Amino acid sequence: MTKTLAIDCMGGDYGPSVIIPAAISALQQHSDLQIYLVGPQQELNSHLKTHPKFDSRLHIQDASEVIGMSEKPSAALRRKPDSSMRKSLELVRDGEADACVSSGNTGALMALATVLLGTLPGIERPAITAELPNRKGSVTNMLDLGANIDASAEQLTSYAVMGHVLSERADGIDNPRVALLNIGEEAIKGRDSIKLAGEMLSNQSAMNYVGYIEANEIFDGDVDVVVCDGFTGNNVLKACEGITRFLYDQLRTEFTRSWWSKAVSALVWPLLKSFQRRINPDQYNGASLLGLREIVIKSHGSADSKATLFAINKAITEIERQVPQAIQDTVAQLLLNTDNEE
Amino acid sequence: MTKTLAIDCMGGDYGPSVIIPAAISALQQHSDLQIYLVGPQQELNSHLKTHPKFDSRLHIQDASEVIGMSEKPSAALRRKPDSSMRKSLELVRDGEADACVSSGNTGALMALATVLLGTLPGIERPAITAELPNRKGSVTNMLDLGANIDASAEQLTSYAVMGHVLSERADGIDNPRVALLNIGEEAIKGRDSIKLAGEMLSNQSAMNYVGYIEANEIFDGDVDVVVCDGFTGNNVLKACEGITRFLYDQLRTEFTRSWWSKAVSALVWPLLKSFQRRINPDQYNGASLLGLREIVIKSHGSADSKATLFAINKAITEIERQVPQAIQDTVAQLLLNTDNEE
Repeated sequence: MTKTLAIDCMGGDYGPSVIIPAAISALQQHSDLQIYLVGPQQELNSHLKTHPKFDSRLHIQDASEVIGMSEKPSAALRRKPDSSMRKSLELVRDGEADACVSSGNTGALMALATVLLGTLPGIERPAITAELPNRKGSVTNMLDLGANIDASAEQLTSYAVMGHVLSERADGIDNPRVALLNIGEEAIKGRDSIKLAGEMLSNQSAMNYVGYIEANEIFDGDVDVVVCDGFTGNNVLKACEGITRFLYDQLRTEFTRSWWSKAVSALVWPLLKSFQRRINPDQYNGASLLGLREIVIKSHGSADSKATLFAINKAITEIERQVPQAIQDTVAQLLLNTDNEE
Repeated sequence: MTKTLAIDCMGGDYGPSVIIPAAISALQQHSDLQIYLVGPQQELNSHLKTHPKFDSRLHIQDASEVIGMSEKPSAALRRKPDSSMRKSLELVRDGEADACVSSGNTGALMALATVLLGTLPGIERPAITAELPNRKGSVTNMLDLGANIDASAEQLTSYAVMGHVLSERADGIDNPRVALLNIGEEAIKGRDSIKLAGEMLSNQSAMNYVGYIEANEIFDGDVDVVVCDGFTGNNVLKACEGITRFLYDQLRTEFTRSWWSKAVSALVWPLLKSFQRRINPDQYNGASLLGLREIVIKSHGSADSKATLFAINKAITEIERQVPQAIQDTVAQLLLNTDNEE
């Protein structure tokens, strides 16, 4: 099966200079892959000079405009009809590509993707999902990470279904354990929306709902999917980024404090590098915008070529596993059934 | 000035076996300190046998009941009139002690403290505040960490005032920088309650309100007070605990992987210990229940004697700096003025 990606080359901190090398690497890895590079033709061509050998599988889609990283989603929707982000999504909408990868402005990408591609039946709003590492060496999918500020019980339940499908399909986890994030494990605590979602999830048997977890358990690897509202998810994820950077800094300071510690750190260097590889968030780059009719992957704004390649490979996996179709089927089976019983 | 503490000895994972040694250390450090140890007399006496020399400054307040760590706050309020937690707070209410320290059930402590001690004029609900380390080597006060699930704009504003006072008084920071936690720095993003609180805080000049920050900036040390609703704060704090434990585990695994890394780790050990001391959360043990008429400090349930001593010393600092009175004065000046202008 030929797979075709539309890659928005104009997002992120580095633009085509890191995105095009990642696209070339992906073409090297996957012989059945076709790629549309989307952005100002002249600029893209200047980066492509040295990659003539993928001519037949690499296409340039000209797009004259770029959506800025701090532009309002509403502006991205109403103005800039020729933005690289919009053009990338239109290639997917028109069946020219199977998935879109962008490292542009998240809010704009959410808004444009929702309008251009639409949500699946039974899904009110898409959610942003990312893979987090854990102590068991597997991955935990967490959603929503900021697509929507608040979440009703119904939205939380639909996030649970989408996370379940992603975990099963994309990560190959059998009967994934799905949990709701709450501030106490006792059913009496927490928001009403969470309690109600917990009841709804307890009343179905098609999905392995395991109850509440607290945020300190996210990295334990005892659950495969963590569901929360987007405000909480976004803050939790960013706090984790912040404290990880802080801990690294402290460790580096410790190892450069004296001639003795500098000498030791030379010995330790290979171990620290190995450690860094194991917890490198770039390995987990690529957030899925779940609940849309098509596949859209958001790459981190600060991703380098290697991290961008992870996001591209994530898109390819979701194409192969037909994630949107699987979500649609599961929603029909679980949520629409639930509705009928009420 | 003699300072008197009421210490609930029956909370936390270890009870009197860690709390009494911490109390004894505090008496050694502070010659003007008096302590009430609160709990079942017989049990406390059995732990005290070896500490006869503080007889004149160490008092036992018998309390026959203990509030369990998973007991509902409502049950703690209605039943158990002779609990060690309630007795400790009553000593403060009745003027026998200047502050209460407990490592018991947070929800029960909040509920009992609010009912027995009352909130300050202008403060609707107390908030839980803790000190977090940061890259600049100072501390950042974050609140609310879970006293209340949601927070209105008025509540967020009162948290800002309380954080400002704590930072200025207890940490000695001149004109502390106060920020609201949000999911984007642009004023257009985030919840309505946050936007409204931002406007209210921008419209006063007595306090150094610096705008929104995102959660990845909490540990940068560029602000002294971070204000958010209790659900978000609790999740952010617990996620940070979880990822710190996860990173430690990964580091330890790295250093015990082979004979070579084991050999290196023997050399590295003193550096790692020094690192651990610098980021040790026990250094920051002791969450303040701000907004009450009296001083109440919550010690972490898993605190050892050393960490418990930090919580005790925090209570002593708040007594010396008269934190509740300062909050009352600032609220009167800022919030009640603001109300008058509307």
